[in-house]
Amino acid sequence: MSRKIVIIGANAAGVHAANAARKTDSKAQIILIDKEPYPAYSRCGIPYVLAGEIPSFNDLTAFPPSHYRVMKFDLHLEAKARSINPNDRIVLVENKEGNIEALKYDSLILTQGADPFIIPIRGHDLPGVFAMRTMDDGKAIQEAMKTAERAIVIGAGFIGLETAHALAVNKIKTTIVEVVPYILPALFDEDMADYTQKKIEEHGVDVVVGKRVEAILGKDKVEGVNVAGEEINADIVVMAAGIRPRTELIRGLGVELGVTRAIRVNPRMETNVSGIFAAGDCVESQSSITGLPCLYQLGTNAVRQGTTAGINAAGGYAANPRVICSAVSKIFDFELGAVGLSEFQAAKVGFKTLSASITGKTRAHYFPGGKEVKVKIVAEPILGRVMGAQIVGGEDVAQRINMLSVAIQKEMTALELSTADTSYAPPVAETVEPVATAAEIVAKKIRRR
Amino acid sequence: MSRKIVIIGANAAGVHAANAARKTDSKAQIILIDKEPYPAYSRCGIPYVLAGEIPSFNDLTAFPPSHYRVMKFDLHLEAKARSINPNDRIVLVENKEGNIEALKYDSLILTQGADPFIIPIRGHDLPGVFAMRTMDDGKAIQEAMKTAERAIVIGAGFIGLETAHALAVNKIKTTIVEVVPYILPALFDEDMADYTQKKIEEHGVDVVVGKRVEAILGKDKVEGVNVAGEEINADIVVMAAGIRPRTELIRGLGVELGVTRAIRVNPRMETNVSGIFAAGDCVESQSSITGLPCLYQLGTNAVRQGTTAGINAAGGYAANPRVICSAVSKIFDFELGAVGLSEFQAAKVGFKTLSASITGKTRAHYFPGGKEVKVKIVAEPILGRVMGAQIVGGEDVAQRINMLSVAIQKEMTALELSTADTSYAPPVAETVEPVATAAEIVAKKIRRR
Repeated sequence: MSRKIVIIGANAAGVHAANAARKTDSKAQIILIDKEPYPAYSRCGIPYVLAGEIPSFNDLTAFPPSHYRVMKFDLHLEAKARSINPNDRIVLVENKEGNIEALKYDSLILTQGADPFIIPIRGHDLPGVFAMRTMDDGKAIQEAMKTAERAIVIGAGFIGLETAHALAVNKIKTTIVEVVPYILPALFDEDMADYTQKKIEEHGVDVVVGKRVEAILGKDKVEGVNVAGEEINADIVVMAAGIRPRTELIRGLGVELGVTRAIRVNPRMETNVSGIFAAGDCVESQSSITGLPCLYQLGTNAVRQGTTAGINAAGGYAANPRVICSAVSKIFDFELGAVGLSEFQAAKVGFKTLSASITGKTRAHYFPGGKEVKVKIVAEPILGRVMGAQIVGGEDVAQRINMLSVAIQKEMTALELSTADTSYAPPVAETVEPVATAAEIVAKKIRRR
Repeated sequence: MSRKIVIIGANAAGVHAANAARKTDSKAQIILIDKEPYPAYSRCGIPYVLAGEIPSFNDLTAFPPSHYRVMKFDLHLEAKARSINPNDRIVLVENKEGNIEALKYDSLILTQGADPFIIPIRGHDLPGVFAMRTMDDGKAIQEAMKTAERAIVIGAGFIGLETAHALAVNKIKTTIVEVVPYILPALFDEDMADYTQKKIEEHGVDVVVGKRVEAILGKDKVEGVNVAGEEINADIVVMAAGIRPRTELIRGLGVELGVTRAIRVNPRMETNVSGIFAAGDCVESQSSITGLPCLYQLGTNAVRQGTTAGINAAGGYAANPRVICSAVSKIFDFELGAVGLSEFQAAKVGFKTLSASITGKTRAHYFPGGKEVKVKIVAEPILGRVMGAQIVGGEDVAQRINMLSVAIQKEMTALELSTADTSYAPPVAETVEPVATAAEIVAKKIRRR
C-alpha cells in the first residue's frame, strides 16, 4: 500500500516538502492542506507588488497549477486542519464547505508557518489596520493605498522597512515606529542601523525609534496613532512587529516546543512525536555559531527544511546543518543584509566581540555609477573567528553576505578573511574588497589585545 | 642615516610598495622610477575609457600629485633603470634628459611589470598595429578609432575581449582571433567559453577560434590580416596575446627566475639576492591549490604583493599567502569571472576533476530585470574539494567569485558548499543560490563515483 503523507501548510516549506517527498517516493499519496485560497506563493514578493516593482500578485505564484497535477499532489485550499491524533495517525480537516474529513497519514509534516504578531493595543482591530503576511493582506493594503495619504508602519524589521518603501514610493507619507532605540534590532547593531535610518529618511520616510505605539486612534476606521503621547495622523497602519510560530494545532499532543516557542526538531526535521515532521517558520533552528536554539524564519530556510522533511517523511534520509542565518533585502536605491550574529546578539548570549566597519565603493573610484557600500564585521576576540557581518550598499550586497556566510561556515578568522583572494575589475569592484579591509581592521584589533 | 628604498616601476605594485614602506618607516628615502610619463594609473580602466564608459584617461590616475608630495616620494618619470649593481647596491638610472644618475639603495623593489607579447609575424610593426598595455597605447588606439571601420583583436583573454567590447560599442566592426580552439583559454573551459562566445557574437563581434593570424597585411599601414589563409580587412589590429614579465634589467645579476620565466620570490617578496624585492606582474606566484608556481598578473595581486614588499623593504615584517587566482571582467551587458583552476588547467598538472554547471537567475523568477547567471564548479573527486569556478552572468558575478574564492581558501568541499546558508530577497537573489545548486550537482557526482 502506498505511503500517505499529509502536509499542513502549502507554502515554501510545505510545497518543497511535497516536491522532495515525490522525488523520494514516486508512489506516495501526498496531500497538501492550506487555509488560504491560493496555492503556494512568494510572501517575500508582496511588498514589491505594492511598490509597483512586480506587476501583479499573480506573478508571485510559485508553481503553475500543472505542477500540482504533474506531481500528483492532492491540494486542498481553504481547508483547515482541526486536530491531530498522533496515536491513530489521523488529521481532521475542515474543507471550505465546512465538512470535516478524517485523513490517515503515515507521515505528517507541519509547515503551517507563523502568524503576524498583532500588538493588542486599543484600536488594533479598526478598519485600516493591516498585517503584512498573506496575499490577502497585500491585496487589502493595495486597496487602502488608493485613497490613503498617511501611513504608519509599526516595527522596523525587514518587513516593516519593505512595507514603508512600498508606501513611500506610492507617495503616501509614511512613518515607521520602532519600540527599540534603533531600527532592524534583530539584524543590525545601532551604528549600522543609524546609518540605514538616515538613508531611509533621505527618501522622505519618517522614522521614530525608542517609542511605543500606545494606541491606534479612530472611531470607525483608523485616523492615527498615539506614539508615546504624541498623535500622528494616518489612514493606514501596518503591524510589522514580527511573527509567531503557529502551534495551536499541536497543543496538548506532546509535540515539544523549544525555548523560542517554536517546534523542536532534530536535523532530519522530526519532532519528538513519531511520524510527525515540521519545517519552516513554525520550527526552531539551531545556530552553528552559538550552538543555541534560534528562530530563522525566512524563505530560504523554509525551502531547505521543507526539502529535508519531505525526503525523510517519504522514507529517505536527509539532514540539515545548523544555521548561520543570512538575510538580505532591498529598499529604495540600496540593499541591506546581515549574516551570523550582531554584536548585540552575541553579547546577549555571553560572547565578547570585536568589530570594525568601513565604507567602500562597489566599483573603481573612477568608474561612473559606483555605489557606496558599508561593511561591518564582527569577530570573537580570542581565536578571531568571524561571527557576523552587516552590510548596506547601493548594489552587490547579497553576494557579499554569501561570501561572509561561507567564511562563517568554515570558521574563518578575520585575519584569514583579510587575505582573501578577491576579484577586481573597474566596472564591478574596487581593487581592494571592502570586506577584506574591514576584516583587516578587525584582525589588527585582535592582535593588539 | 635614513634607509634608502629604490622602486623600479611606479604603478600598482610600485606605488603600493612605496605607500607601505612609508607607513613602516616614516623617515625612509623612497625613490620611485618609471619609464612612462604618467604617475601611477589604472591599466585595467583603459578599455573602458575607449568604450566611453569612463570619461577620460585622466580619470585613471591612481593618486593625485599631492599624494607623492605628502608621502615624500621622490618620483622620477620618463626615467629608465639601466643597470643594477647588487654588490654595491647601486642602480644606474637614465633620466628624461638622458643623464645617468647612480642611486644607492638599501632596499630595491622590482615592480617593472610586464610587456605585452607582440607576435613576431610579418607586418607586426605596421602603423595601425597596437598593444593594449599603457596609457599611450590607449591614446593611440583612441586616435585610430576615430577613422577606423574594421578592427582585429588578436587574443581572446580578458584584455582582448575588453578591447573588442570597446571597439564594438564605437561601431567598429570587430573580429577576435584566438589560436586556441576556444576563447578565454587561460580562465575558462570550452563549455563556458562557448557560452560566452555566443553572448559576444550577439553583440555583433565576430569570433574566430582555433586559427592563427599568419600575417598582418598592408603596405604603409594596416589593411588587414591573414587568418589561416583567409584575408580579413582591418584598419586597426590590437595584439592582446598575453604579457611577459619584464626581466631584462636583472639578466646576469643572479636574480632567479622561476619556471614561468617570472622572478622567484619568497612569501615576503624577497628575491634570492640580498636587498632586492620584487612584486607585481614581473614575479611568479605560488598556487595554494596545486602548490605549483603560476602567473597571477592582475592589479589585485600587484597591490597585495607591492604592499608586502614595501613593508619588508622598509624593515617591517609581512608575508603573503599563496594565491587562488580570482579574476573578473565586464563587457557589453554581462560579467564574467573565474577563480582557482579550470578543468583544463587542473588536468595539465595531473589533477582529475568533476564539474557541474547550471544556469540560474540573479533575482526571483518573477522579479522584473533579473539576469541569467551560469555557474560552473570544478572539484577534485576524492575529498570533493572545490578547485575552481567559472561564472558568466548579467550581474553580481564578482562577489560570487569572491564567495568561491573564500570557499577554496578554506578548502571547502562541494558538499559543504551545497549547504551554504545563502541569502535571498526577490529583488537581489533567487531562493536557492545557483552556486549552491551547482555545488550540489558536483557533490552528487562525487558520491556516485
